[in-house]
Amino acid sequence: VLVSTSPLTQPELGASIFADLSPAELRAVRSFLLSQPELALASGHRDTLAKNSLFLVELQVPRKTQALQYLEGGGPRPQRQARAVIFFGEQAEPNVTEFVVGPLPRPSYYRPVSYPGRRPIPFAARPMSQLEYELLHRKLAEVTEPLYQLLRETTGFWYHNCSERCLTFSDVAPRGLAPGERRSWLMLQRFVEGYFLHPVGLEILLDHRARDPRHWAVQQLWYNGHYFASPEELAWRYQRGELAVGRPPPANPALLFSTYLPRGHFSTGTRTDVHGAKVCEPQGKRYWVQGNLVEYGGWHLAVRLRSSAGLQLFDVRFNGERLAYELSVQEAVAFYGGSTPAAMQTKYVDAGWGMGTVAHELAPGIDCPEVATYLDVHHLYDAEGPVRYSRALCLFELPTGVPLRRHFNSNFRGGYHFYAGLEGQALVLRTTSTVYNYDYIWDVLLYPNGVLEAKVHATGYIHASYYTPQGLRYGSRVQRDVLGNMHTHLVHYKLDLDIAGTGNSFETVEMRFENISNPWSAGERVVQSRLHRRPRRTERQAAFPFGTALPRYLMFYSPSQRNRWGHPRSYRIQYSSQADRVLPRGWKEEKGIAWGRYHLAVTRRHEREATSSSLYAQNDLWEPTVDFEGFIRNDENIENQDLVAWVTVGFLHIPHAEDVPNTATPGNAVGFFLRPFNFFDEDPAVASYSPVIVRPLDPAFARVEIQRWTPASPGPCVSPEPFRYNGTYWEE
Amino acid sequence: VLVSTSPLTQPELGASIFADLSPAELRAVRSFLLSQPELALASGHRDTLAKNSLFLVELQVPRKTQALQYLEGGGPRPQRQARAVIFFGEQAEPNVTEFVVGPLPRPSYYRPVSYPGRRPIPFAARPMSQLEYELLHRKLAEVTEPLYQLLRETTGFWYHNCSERCLTFSDVAPRGLAPGERRSWLMLQRFVEGYFLHPVGLEILLDHRARDPRHWAVQQLWYNGHYFASPEELAWRYQRGELAVGRPPPANPALLFSTYLPRGHFSTGTRTDVHGAKVCEPQGKRYWVQGNLVEYGGWHLAVRLRSSAGLQLFDVRFNGERLAYELSVQEAVAFYGGSTPAAMQTKYVDAGWGMGTVAHELAPGIDCPEVATYLDVHHLYDAEGPVRYSRALCLFELPTGVPLRRHFNSNFRGGYHFYAGLEGQALVLRTTSTVYNYDYIWDVLLYPNGVLEAKVHATGYIHASYYTPQGLRYGSRVQRDVLGNMHTHLVHYKLDLDIAGTGNSFETVEMRFENISNPWSAGERVVQSRLHRRPRRTERQAAFPFGTALPRYLMFYSPSQRNRWGHPRSYRIQYSSQADRVLPRGWKEEKGIAWGRYHLAVTRRHEREATSSSLYAQNDLWEPTVDFEGFIRNDENIENQDLVAWVTVGFLHIPHAEDVPNTATPGNAVGFFLRPFNFFDEDPAVASYSPVIVRPLDPAFARVEIQRWTPASPGPCVSPEPFRYNGTYWEE
Ligand SMILES: [Ca+2]
Ligand SMILES: [Ca+2]
Ligand SMILES: [Ca+2]
Ligand SMILES: [Ca+2]
Ligand SMILES: [Cu+2]
Ligand SMILES: [Cu+2]
Repeated sequence: VLVSTSPLTQPELGASIFADLSPAELRAVRSFLLSQPELALASGHRDTLAKNSLFLVELQVPRKTQALQYLEGGGPRPQRQARAVIFFGEQAEPNVTEFVVGPLPRPSYYRPVSYPGRRPIPFAARPMSQLEYELLHRKLAEVTEPLYQLLRETTGFWYHNCSERCLTFSDVAPRGLAPGERRSWLMLQRFVEGYFLHPVGLEILLDHRARDPRHWAVQQLWYNGHYFASPEELAWRYQRGELAVGRPPPANPALLFSTYLPRGHFSTGTRTDVHGAKVCEPQGKRYWVQGNLVEYGGWHLAVRLRSSAGLQLFDVRFNGERLAYELSVQEAVAFYGGSTPAAMQTKYVDAGWGMGTVAHELAPGIDCPEVATYLDVHHLYDAEGPVRYSRALCLFELPTGVPLRRHFNSNFRGGYHFYAGLEGQALVLRTTSTVYNYDYIWDVLLYPNGVLEAKVHATGYIHASYYTPQGLRYGSRVQRDVLGNMHTHLVHYKLDLDIAGTGNSFETVEMRFENISNPWSAGERVVQSRLHRRPRRTERQAAFPFGTALPRYLMFYSPSQRNRWGHPRSYRIQYSSQADRVLPRGWKEEKGIAWGRYHLAVTRRHEREATSSSLYAQNDLWEPTVDFEGFIRNDENIENQDLVAWVTVGFLHIPHAEDVPNTATPGNAVGFFLRPFNFFDEDPAVASYSPVIVRPLDPAFARVEIQRWTPASPGPCVSPEPFRYNGTYWEE
Repeated sequence: VLVSTSPLTQPELGASIFADLSPAELRAVRSFLLSQPELALASGHRDTLAKNSLFLVELQVPRKTQALQYLEGGGPRPQRQARAVIFFGEQAEPNVTEFVVGPLPRPSYYRPVSYPGRRPIPFAARPMSQLEYELLHRKLAEVTEPLYQLLRETTGFWYHNCSERCLTFSDVAPRGLAPGERRSWLMLQRFVEGYFLHPVGLEILLDHRARDPRHWAVQQLWYNGHYFASPEELAWRYQRGELAVGRPPPANPALLFSTYLPRGHFSTGTRTDVHGAKVCEPQGKRYWVQGNLVEYGGWHLAVRLRSSAGLQLFDVRFNGERLAYELSVQEAVAFYGGSTPAAMQTKYVDAGWGMGTVAHELAPGIDCPEVATYLDVHHLYDAEGPVRYSRALCLFELPTGVPLRRHFNSNFRGGYHFYAGLEGQALVLRTTSTVYNYDYIWDVLLYPNGVLEAKVHATGYIHASYYTPQGLRYGSRVQRDVLGNMHTHLVHYKLDLDIAGTGNSFETVEMRFENISNPWSAGERVVQSRLHRRPRRTERQAAFPFGTALPRYLMFYSPSQRNRWGHPRSYRIQYSSQADRVLPRGWKEEKGIAWGRYHLAVTRRHEREATSSSLYAQNDLWEPTVDFEGFIRNDENIENQDLVAWVTVGFLHIPHAEDVPNTATPGNAVGFFLRPFNFFDEDPAVASYSPVIVRPLDPAFARVEIQRWTPASPGPCVSPEPFRYNGTYWEE
């Protein structure tokens, strides 16, 4: 039975080796580490950053060789281990260190791990914590005191000692211009419903690098188009009347433009206060969830949510054959352009914001259909213990609205030989990440014909800045005071495809024209398309930078296994993306997202190249902990090897008035399809008993035979009427 | 009340001026023309092509100026007129002529119309008729008589005098190599369920240009890789044992690979003999159909099906404002490569096959949800009277499965400020075209936020040829005897956008990097993105050939109307396509599909440039009746003009084993979005009363306020449980 609280670990299942740590396991790791005196971990809250704190505990995924040995029946069950991240703030050389802790459930060892070719992780590269935000908030209250009068009079809101008409702030990243810096531009906003769209025109550069917040200081301010050295200078100019003040606070509007409250009306009579079309399940669920194992229509996979980047699938099989060892989100970034300092500084790199942990409750009937299955997850991230995220994942069968396949076989004389169709459904596996203002909706769709689709929708609030006329070079004015700044979204996926085994090769196929003599008409020429195959033998040959067209057929195949018709068994990646680079290659912060140089890079798999990004990319883009370019630089041979496809998708987002109150999902989805290409001998969806075939039984087409294996009527949730079909067309 | 047989004409509605002709109107036009002695139209069947026959009658769409005057309230209702196509086979100079006939319902005049700059339509350019097929069939029976023994012994099937084990044929086009020719390669196939996948290795070139079928003759044959001058030569070689015969007929297999009958099984326990997820409507339909008028969520449009190319929408409005005067399918082509003469000759141009008339019955629960609304249409195409196509169109509200927008507003401390979401639904308007083997599924989706999506899915049988090893340069072997030939699908849409009026301009916007000095850190440089706008002032500047990247923002705007925030009111076309050219520019048959040179061309609208293709393109690609390049050649100014966007989408299809039995829809859809861009002042979906907003009511998040305008429970079709939400995440 499907229970929304079904734990993600069920030790009897193979999939469970990939399951996220249970609350008990998380607690055990935490207790174990806290009991190690040499780690000197502080427990509980202390209002200083000069302490050692356990920031993150999550599953340490087993090594692939061990996992495969276990899954294929021969090997022992891999030990369960954890990965722990400790902020060592109380040391002479403060740093961040990652540890592997095991074995679970009763840990007895821990050992530091390092990223290849990399010194210790700089303390300044660490993600923000709740404590640091709290300290920032207090500092901001302090430094904005001199601005009370300015803020109150010109915006109607203020920061310190506020209760009703409060300001809040959004911080942008990276936090400086070079490694080691930690100074953030903070944009002040009215704290109303949808405050992301309510900048007041004040941005403050606060240096918060010191572990002791008493050493923090404002370095600069920007107000309504001008820079100031200190809050005092700004306040003084205001008092002297020398300031070009911002637009006055809006007269109390009937309705806040940033809310979801309905306003206006559709000119058509469409009623929207009643429920529209829904997903229903007349005969129950056709998928199966047990712990972290999902099965549907030939598909089998294990699921977890990484704290850094979220969705991570393992052991993705179709009809028992592994297609991918891993399919996971690695990173999501949004790089902006703007005229205010905060906007021009904004290069969000979301794994550094715990993108996998901001998977909040999915609302039934809105975020997923009412009939979906909802699963809880646990994270231990910047917390004293495991935190339960209720309904963080959902699964449901989606009626795609389009048949999987169909054909009407006409006789061209008013009748037909047969009609056949197979209804279209897919299992959707979904989670979201609300990274501050933005909401990503992460989907994996499983179709019963061996096609997998991964995609992400963008919604939520845009990251906006205070409107000044200079801003129009970078976006649209979307409200009186609000500029929607242009930005590029890029999302990175890891796809450890194992196509008919781990030994794979890669080639691209395009169409080329050939010009040949016409074999049946002497002297005539035929120009036609033919296949143009390009084997890609090394990593560099298989890295496709932006700015060049990506070949349309990207084929991963087994050089040893062939299908019944003699073709190498292959799967293909097909893109749905409008991505392009976000910065010139090698430019400062671009080094931190080197994966964003390529539509696709295919590398030889290495355990030490597990991820293309890290928790630390956001705050150290200049000298990133994970150097993705290094995966390719040795230009290894990739023939008959264990390959990984690194897939970048994205789109250019120029905000417009219709992004208020929120960016809408239609048209804002990117992703890719994984499609079989001669992997099978025929469409594997022929195994489905859901098709309907109709054949006329007499020459007049008056009676038909309806051949089907599902009930004629799906039952009460749709319509009690049984299926009927005639197929003829006739002269009247 | 919605009735599946609701006629498409309801004279009291503005939309009705675009409604297809009713059966009575079609009959009236036919009777009127048959009564004109100078047309000398033959009624009834006569087994000759040397006769004058009325091939097609359909609506003659009113001129735009008249239609707009009427729709905007000032002008008279435009006369209803018909367009009639007559094949003049009984004249000294046989030709095809088109006539306008009116006024309906009692015609009193007819006058010939011509395509601009074009001589009469050549007789050889006409589409095939049922009669011509019947005559081809008889001829084929006759000419294959000498091959009886060969066919029977080597394939197990034969053509003439067959009853059980019959052969059939597929004809390819164009029918020759130059204007005026009419000689078709016919591929012989076993007549079994899914005969398109059963070529026997015999292809016959039959000249059927003469109006008198007694003059028709076989010109060449291809059998199993070799060419022969006549059936007799082939038969003689066979009898002498000199022939490399094809593979023997397959031993009677348990199951035909080309059927939809289930076989094999999914390794997972998934039951497929029960119904999966469905679309249901707990509170009824939220859209409105009356005659040919459709309304939903702010949208309003008129619909019809052209006989040549199918779906054609007029007067597409959102909240009363016209966005497009016309949105229509113009053409669909598939150009192939291959090693057999039929395969290398195949350049299907589907309007010439009456693509709009092959809109056959949609099966409820498969082609559209059970709860969809189905509409009948009538065509008079190659028939003695109106033919009713039952359930040729369907409409339904689709739960997209993803919210239109949503945001979780975290407090980052286990609670939240609010959650808000708006469920995702769209109205789908659908028809299909089964062009022989292939089934196109044509969709227009209307989203309540002013976004329109047009897309086409490809399914049905691939066009396949007899497998020989030479074929592998052009595709995959997909069964023992079957090669799936590579081809490019291109689809052409006409989009007469009228964005805030008919006076529109067009510009493209891309992202460019700028390198500026950092305004807050002396000596530092900032590289960031900014908008790069390029006004496109003439038709040539606004034509984007394949081979160059299409800018990502394609903006149609009113140069005079601005939204509340000062931006020109704009709509944007966003592509979902993998198209590329099908032949080198100017190469022979490429001239017939000059529209296929461009991702997008924007032209000044002219009444005489109503369509980019015609019924005659297929059989006269070399000297096409409609010369699309001519629309651009005069390079008119397109600033503040009535513009038309011509949109080409498509994909490269390299068939693979999984295309058997049929190409599946997942991943095989292309199309475009029409998206508002500062057209409105905010998201117009704020008018919907379907959002749900949840706010915590106490600091402990124990109680919540759920603000909504729809019932808490959608009712019995999904789940009786009311909506609930909590939103907190907590330490355990
Ligand atoms: Ca490498
Ligand atoms: Ca691999
Ligand atoms: Ca022109
Ligand atoms: Ca126009
Ligand atoms: Cu965005
Ligand atoms: Cu195709």
